[in-house]
Parts: sequence; structure tokens; C-alpha cells
Amino acid sequence: MPLVPLARRAARLSASLPPAAPAGAIAFDSGHASPAVLPDLGVEAARSLSERRAETLQYAPRTGLPELRDWIAGYLNEDGVAVSGEQILVTNGAKQAIELVCRMLLDEGDAIVVTAPTYFSAIPIFRSFGAGFIEVGQDREGLDVDQLAALLALLDAEGRPRPKFLYDVPDFHNPTGLTMFPARRAALLELAAKYEFLIVEDSPYRQVRFEGRSVPSLKALDQDDRVVQVGTFSKLMAPGLRVGWAAAPSPLIARMAQLKADGGSCPLTQRLILEFCAAGRLRAHTERFRLVYRANRDRMVAAVRRELPEASMVVPEGGYYLWLTLPTGVDGEALAQCAAEAGVIVLPGSRFFAGARAGRLDNHVRLAFSHSAGDEIDEGVQRLAAGFKALDAAPAVPAER
Amino acid sequence: MPLVPLARRAARLSASLPPAAPAGAIAFDSGHASPAVLPDLGVEAARSLSERRAETLQYAPRTGLPELRDWIAGYLNEDGVAVSGEQILVTNGAKQAIELVCRMLLDEGDAIVVTAPTYFSAIPIFRSFGAGFIEVGQDREGLDVDQLAALLALLDAEGRPRPKFLYDVPDFHNPTGLTMFPARRAALLELAAKYEFLIVEDSPYRQVRFEGRSVPSLKALDQDDRVVQVGTFSKLMAPGLRVGWAAAPSPLIARMAQLKADGGSCPLTQRLILEFCAAGRLRAHTERFRLVYRANRDRMVAAVRRELPEASMVVPEGGYYLWLTLPTGVDGEALAQCAAEAGVIVLPGSRFFAGARAGRLDNHVRLAFSHSAGDEIDEGVQRLAAGFKALDAAPAVPAER
Repeated sequence: MPLVPLARRAARLSASLPPAAPAGAIAFDSGHASPAVLPDLGVEAARSLSERRAETLQYAPRTGLPELRDWIAGYLNEDGVAVSGEQILVTNGAKQAIELVCRMLLDEGDAIVVTAPTYFSAIPIFRSFGAGFIEVGQDREGLDVDQLAALLALLDAEGRPRPKFLYDVPDFHNPTGLTMFPARRAALLELAAKYEFLIVEDSPYRQVRFEGRSVPSLKALDQDDRVVQVGTFSKLMAPGLRVGWAAAPSPLIARMAQLKADGGSCPLTQRLILEFCAAGRLRAHTERFRLVYRANRDRMVAAVRRELPEASMVVPEGGYYLWLTLPTGVDGEALAQCAAEAGVIVLPGSRFFAGARAGRLDNHVRLAFSHSAGDEIDEGVQRLAAGFKALDAAPAVPAER
Repeated sequence: MPLVPLARRAARLSASLPPAAPAGAIAFDSGHASPAVLPDLGVEAARSLSERRAETLQYAPRTGLPELRDWIAGYLNEDGVAVSGEQILVTNGAKQAIELVCRMLLDEGDAIVVTAPTYFSAIPIFRSFGAGFIEVGQDREGLDVDQLAALLALLDAEGRPRPKFLYDVPDFHNPTGLTMFPARRAALLELAAKYEFLIVEDSPYRQVRFEGRSVPSLKALDQDDRVVQVGTFSKLMAPGLRVGWAAAPSPLIARMAQLKADGGSCPLTQRLILEFCAAGRLRAHTERFRLVYRANRDRMVAAVRRELPEASMVVPEGGYYLWLTLPTGVDGEALAQCAAEAGVIVLPGSRFFAGARAGRLDNHVRLAFSHSAGDEIDEGVQRLAAGFKALDAAPAVPAER
């Protein structure tokens, strides 16, 4: 191998990919969709590839198909967000939207605010831009805004730079499943105005609500153009389509579009989505996946209470995940290892911490209830409980690594 | 708008997108495919979305569908490149492959080598990583390796840092259409070994050859694992599929995969491509697009000789583009403007310079012959000639801006 030195950002990341799950293992780790709710797009595909071949097989506009941008804007309007198509950027999934925000705003060493824990797939994106993390906790009402206010006041008092943006998943948070209460949202927007940072509101699960009243989104409450809302069809239709979006003030959309040097997002999948949604099929589809995921959640919650009473949890009103708190001193990584040996894949809580607690002992595991179904959920939780018992029998691990 | 300062990389790029072409204009600017050669993928799509729904609508592996990686490796094997599927990374078009190389290797201020002129869509990617440009010329035999050797020796003599990589399009260069001669390729690889830089061989047009013998690719000649070859189905099948690849030593592929935090490339379009190619349809399709693009090239070359004899050119043996050299002192930007007013869109040569000559007076324009056909090509060149005459009648512009 030639000896060309890696960029600092690349050297910060491991070159190894996660190992493949063993055959026969039940996967509670991924945010894959339930196979039962993957839509049938055959008719849309056949029509799009014949009648619209010159659109679906050529380069698409950099900002996305205009009709899709308008449709997304209308969809957000129904959710209380006042945007037009020009304030929508179509992206290759939500992750590209997050990455474009980083490209637009972050220089090496800039600070951002994240919850602890936070969405684990966003962490390497932030790290690759050299971000420093200001971590803030959550309680049952969501992000702890008082704690954040104190941290920001301290930064100012010490003359240290303010964060460029705050990243959060306010609805059915990944991994904790928590939804931020309205008063917290209002207080957070006030802090953002006072300390002049943007808010990246990542909302993949917002429509995956099973019960309870919807809370206005940060973007809907924003009077000050401070919120970039990120959405995705991965959780509305199918992850494989790889189409997401950012909703933001037009000047930010224009900057992000300039940084999106990718030849445009795929026009074929954009058109498939548009045909599906414009025909009104998304509404019935949403009802259907809510029923499926609610049944999955109920089954998994019941199984955990039955099989693993040592774990506590806040039952989420939507989303894809259960965040289990094990007794103090239990090592989530060791539990995930024992669970894998028992035939179920779960993610240890330590994966979800960006800053000081990254890689430290953590007594959580995240279980996705989106992909498995019925008996498989029961069986997976039984295996997790067996892993927990095996862990209990194993020699104690040191409290710090 | 909130006053969050932009990252340096973002501030270097303009926030404005190119204006839309006026209605009725003939587009010689884009590298769109000929509508006549867009493949019919209806059968593949219907089958993939029914029989393989759990693959095509879920997340794909980060490195790409294993079968597609293997197919691409086999396709490159036929072209003399000794790689296996593990040395292939599937990307969102060739541009993402180029961007991942930058993310892997470039820190702010690192130098790279590019030809002057070079592929204009790669320039903002390089700039956004803070790259400094070492520019090297071309003649009829391609990249001027002697000039590069002198530049590199000078860098060493002055104790300045060596370039991280060289970027070139050695087959049917964009924009010049030139193909690098075999002796130049061997000499370039020797220089890369001596001065320890990687070579990014961008080869979108390699199979778009109309006549003459194929020259071994840099990747095929590479004995030292120094070449990252970038390919794309945009020019083999259709741009809208947004699937490209990088072929590189496994450790580099692993690093690039770690940096590719995008949820995997779209499995649906990967599967469409695989079904098309594995069924053997690519061979006949390649024959067909070669005939179409050769006819387009011949028509455009004849039209330029007839309508605009003031322009000189090296007739390319393949690819998508004619690079016209106008008489000294003619301003390519003013010509492109006059041409647009006459109803044909061409790109001024100034767009293709990354370094010192960027934005300076340049007497070239690039014409794509890929998208238009027949009479439209004749009409477009007539309009370009009309623009040239109008320019001649216009007052002289200052030589420097």
C-alpha cells in the first residue's frame, strides 16, 4: 500500500465496518422497515420508466424534482410548517441532509449541542467534520433545556465560542423514544435566539405515532428562521428509496444545494415517491404502518416486562425503539455480546454517546421493534433475557475501560 | 436570517445555482444521455420490486450489493484490471467516489494535481476541501508528464509539500476529448511512485469509444496500488440511476466505506443495473450507444467545420465532447453569452480551470454532442456561428477581468 497520509478527519474514524450478524440471529439492532409494510411500487415503476423515461433516467435538478419539492412542502404545511417548495432540498436520505448542514456550518473544532445519548449514525458524520460536542441530558419531557441554558451561560462567561447548531430528534427520539414537551420546545427556541445557534430538527419518526396528541414541531414553532427540519421517506415508505429532505430558509437551501455536488438525487426514486404520494396512497399506508408498529411495540413491551423485569423503560408513544435501562453496574456492551451469543442482536447504549461518555460503561441497550414481528419478538426478548442471565453468571467486568 | 457564520469551505462557494436555459434553446452544455439510448428497464423494475422487495426497499450494505460489486469487478477484469468485489465500492454516482477520496485524503491546504482544463464539476468538490491546485497542461498525447515532473522536482527542491493525489480523465478527457498515450501513462505511474502520490483515474467515457484501439487504463498498468479508478453507470446505462463505483486497494475501500455515512446507496437502482448487466444486455447496449454518439460526433464536427471554420479542434475518438479553440483574444464567456442569445447553450472554457487561470480570459467553448441529434445538432452549431458573428460585431472586451 502506498504511504499517502490520511486526512485528519479520516484518521479519526476506524476503517473497520461492523461485523455481519450470525446466521439465525434475530435482528433488534437495525431501523429496517417491517417487511409487512413495504409498499408495492410496481405500477409506479413501470409507468415512470416508460412514460417519464427522459425524466427518470436523466440527471435530476440539483435541488430535487420541482413537483416533489412542492408535494413535500404541502405535506409539511399540513403539519403546521409554513414552507414552499423553494424551501425544500431533496437529499439522498436524511443523513445527506445532516451532512450538508455540517458542510455548510462546521469548521474543525466548532462546537455543536447533542443529547446524551444521541442518534449513533450521526456521530461519525459530526466527528468527521471535527465537531466538539456539548452534551445535554433528557428526562421524560425531553431535552433538558435548563441544563443547556446553564451550559451556554458558562460558555459565554468563559468567553468560549458558542455552538453552531443543536441537533436533536424531538419526536420519538433515537434511541430513547422520548418526545419533547411543548414548553421545552418553546424554551429551546428562545435559547437558540439568545445564543444565536441553529436547530437541526431530525424528524424521521414524527408520523410514526401510535397514540397521544401530536406536539407542534420545532419548525412549526420557529418564528426566527432558526430551524432546519430534516425528514425522510425511509420511515414513511421504504428505506431503500434513499430520499430525504431538508426544510430550511431559502438562503440556507441554496447554500446546501451548492454543496450537494452529487449529480442530483435519483429522479427515478423521487418520481416513484411522488406518484405514490400524489395518488393519495401515503395516507392509508401511514395508517397501516402505525398499526403494525404499535402491535410490535406492544408485543415487545409485554415480552420485556415478562422476560426481563430487571429492565426499566419509558414506553414510547411512537417510533421504532425501546431504550432499556438495566440495573446500575450492568455493562450494556457485555450484555449485547451475551445476547448475540444467545441469538439476538441489540445495540449497546455506549454506541449512542458522542462526547465524554463515549466508550464508557453504560447500562442501556436499544431494541428496535420495527423489523421483527409476532413470535419472533417474543423469541428475541427471551434470548435477550437468556443473555442477561449468562452475563449475571459471568465474572464482573471493571467499571471503567 | 440568523447570523450563524458559514464554514470556510461553504463560504468559498457561491450560493447561486446556474440559471435555467431559456425555453427553445438547444442544450450543448450538459452531459445528458441521448434520449434514443436510454434503456428500457420496465421488466427489471417490476421483477425487482416484487420478487426482491425485501432487498430493493430496505437499506443496502454500505459497500454496495455484493453481487453488483462482483459483477463490476468482472467487468473491470475484462478491461485488464485485476480486482475482486472487495476492491469495489458502490457509490452515488462517480462524484461521490471523488468526494470520498477527498474526504479520505485531504486536509485544508493540501495540494492536488489537475489538468488545466479539468472536469468542471470536480472543481467545487476539490475547493470545498480546501485543496490547492498544481495545474499541468495537455497536448495531443494527453497530460504533459514532463511538465509535471519539472513541477514536482521544483516542489521538492523548495521543500514544499507533495501533492496528495493527481486527478485526471485519461480517456476522452472532459472537456478536451484527449486520450493519454500509453507511454505517458507509464511515465505518470513512475512519477506517482517516485513522488508518492495516488492517482484518481476518472473513467466515465472509457467504453464510449468510436474508433481506434483502446489504451490500457492507468489502473490496469498500476503495479503499485496507486490508482483509484472511478467508474459510473451514468455513461453506460443512464445518468438518473446515480450509481458509480471506486475500484481501489481494499484498505482504501474500507476507509472510504467508513466515510460513506449515507445509509447505503439505493438498492433498487443497484438491482436494476445488475439485472440488466447480468442478463448480458449491456454488450448490445454499448454497441448501440457507440453508434449513436459516433453519428452525433460526426454530425457536429462536420457542422463546426462548415459553419464555424474559425474554430479548431482535435477530433476525439470517443466520449461526449468537442473542445473548440477560438482565435486568440476571443472571450469564450462572451461567446457563450452571445450563443445563448442566439438560442444554443455551450459552456465557456473558463469554467474548466481550477487554479490560476480560473475566471481569466479563455478562448475555448465545450460542446456536448451526446444529448442532441441530427438536425438539432446542425441548428445548434448554426446558432453558435451566429453568436460568434454577433460577438465579432460587439465592442471588444478587456483582456483581463
